[in-house]
Amino acid sequence: MNPMTHPATVADVALAAGVSRQTVSNVLNRPEVVRPETLSRVQAAIDGLGYRPHASARRLRTRQSSTLGVRLEPVHGISGAVLDRFLHALVECADERGMRILLFTATDVDDELAHMERLVEGSDVDGFVLTSTFHGDPRAAWLGERDVPFVTFGRPWGLPDMDAAPHPWVDVDGRTGLREATDHLLAQGHRRVGFLGWPSPSGQGDERRRGWQDAVRSAGLPVDVGLTCEDDVAEATRTVTAAIDDGAVVDALVCASDTLALGARFALGGGVPVVGYDDTPVAEALRISSVEQPLVEVASAAVELLMGAGRSVLPASTGHRLLAPRVVWRG
Amino acid sequence: MNPMTHPATVADVALAAGVSRQTVSNVLNRPEVVRPETLSRVQAAIDGLGYRPHASARRLRTRQSSTLGVRLEPVHGISGAVLDRFLHALVECADERGMRILLFTATDVDDELAHMERLVEGSDVDGFVLTSTFHGDPRAAWLGERDVPFVTFGRPWGLPDMDAAPHPWVDVDGRTGLREATDHLLAQGHRRVGFLGWPSPSGQGDERRRGWQDAVRSAGLPVDVGLTCEDDVAEATRTVTAAIDDGAVVDALVCASDTLALGARFALGGGVPVVGYDDTPVAEALRISSVEQPLVEVASAAVELLMGAGRSVLPASTGHRLLAPRVVWRG
Repeated sequence: MNPMTHPATVADVALAAGVSRQTVSNVLNRPEVVRPETLSRVQAAIDGLGYRPHASARRLRTRQSSTLGVRLEPVHGISGAVLDRFLHALVECADERGMRILLFTATDVDDELAHMERLVEGSDVDGFVLTSTFHGDPRAAWLGERDVPFVTFGRPWGLPDMDAAPHPWVDVDGRTGLREATDHLLAQGHRRVGFLGWPSPSGQGDERRRGWQDAVRSAGLPVDVGLTCEDDVAEATRTVTAAIDDGAVVDALVCASDTLALGARFALGGGVPVVGYDDTPVAEALRISSVEQPLVEVASAAVELLMGAGRSVLPASTGHRLLAPRVVWRG
Repeated sequence: MNPMTHPATVADVALAAGVSRQTVSNVLNRPEVVRPETLSRVQAAIDGLGYRPHASARRLRTRQSSTLGVRLEPVHGISGAVLDRFLHALVECADERGMRILLFTATDVDDELAHMERLVEGSDVDGFVLTSTFHGDPRAAWLGERDVPFVTFGRPWGLPDMDAAPHPWVDVDGRTGLREATDHLLAQGHRRVGFLGWPSPSGQGDERRRGWQDAVRSAGLPVDVGLTCEDDVAEATRTVTAAIDDGAVVDALVCASDTLALGARFALGGGVPVVGYDDTPVAEALRISSVEQPLVEVASAAVELLMGAGRSVLPASTGHRLLAPRVVWRG
């Protein structure tokens, strides 16, 4: 009646059924070697006592933790909602496969590696889902050397051939997203669509810039107003204001993030359409158009790459998925 | 060399040391019964093979999962950031005590109970941290009947004497927060400070309204403009606009949430100070003043109530903590 503090044990079941502990263990793990009468007597004792094989014992038998490790990243102002939404979808997708999510936090990437080392050494996890990959990211090589299964949400930036990466990854094609946003603005008659992004090299940032460039070039227009600043509202406002003061002309602006879009909106006022990225609550609240990442599909693809169609982590997998985002247009 | 997929086993260690598996087990669990020569030979084999007692085996010995269950709540637009920040702090506080956080999601409270039942039956968790308590919340009684340790972030709303609740809880004193915000506005010379909150009964909402009432009454002013609507930006804009059209006069407005404050800001323009609640990224981005919950302290108090000063969950605890928020003022 008290499963948490005093659960029935194998010894209790053995006593109640008048058999040895080994026999109880056989009933649980190798019922085919137990005589039918004994089997039903032990089963009755198990039911009567409400005995449940301990989860740790079950995991020990399979040598699996049925657990995936995920670093809960530091809270990032406006854009943090994206990784939280991804985590939510991941917990649901993993649950469908009988996997739970174990969270840890880390102060930086070295601390993250130290945490992962402890989890690997304790056999606490069967694998990891990494987020926010970056140029020079040491985590994939570290896990690869240890044969620890993992999948990344984020491309292996900096690799000469990302399609040939030695680990599975899933990502969202920001280039397509910005291309679609810019094409739409051009189709509406805008002729001076500018871009505000982050300094290079930035995996996602450079891709998003390319999407804007692709669209502007295809329209036969000059690719001129391409601004950069850090991902900060006030910085974005200053950067756009300074560019306008210097004579830049834009009749629409596509941005690498909602943070930048918000700063740009403050600089440009409501008359110039601005498009952000990530469709955060801030963009929704302020009716700013934004490129939305398909996070449920990302989580589902990550689980599929890591586990195939089964209920345990694959020892080796190298597939990848690049998913298309969609633009949420707001008036 | 491959701790995840082919970890060294007790059998490997026994073979390498030329002893029985029972002897290896004794070395690991009862070294005092092993002869020193044998001890050092087995230890050398353990080191040489990189053998680590499996985490599940360790937990099985202690009958503890060293895990707390937490429901990851559905993503709520603007205010969702609060529970995400709490989760982040909780993971860090729990980690300091050697506890991990296991996440699950649920579609509603019945589904949440079903998930908790599975976790309890599998001995997957030592206890729970519940968030978002509400009037008629069945979870505390459910867990109490099963002697499962838990702590709530949120008061046991509806209980005649919450201080005598049969379980530990921690919460933030929203009444004090709204009182402080209103006092400050009155001290600045505002004389018609209104309130926008949620319909009763709402545990947190009613407390926040009382804080506003306390301050206005203490100043000898009439408690008149107390509005309510659902927690939705457009609803808030409509509600405030309709009140003004009906002749309500406010020269400042305190709100039960940042969502309501944003809607009110749209209705009132920038000239009338508005104060929200939760200090979300939206409030920060729009420079709206807001009452900030001390989430790191909440997480720390929750862990302390559940675990005392130790490294395992207490079988019974009934303390509670009501923490003061602070107002973040923005120009």
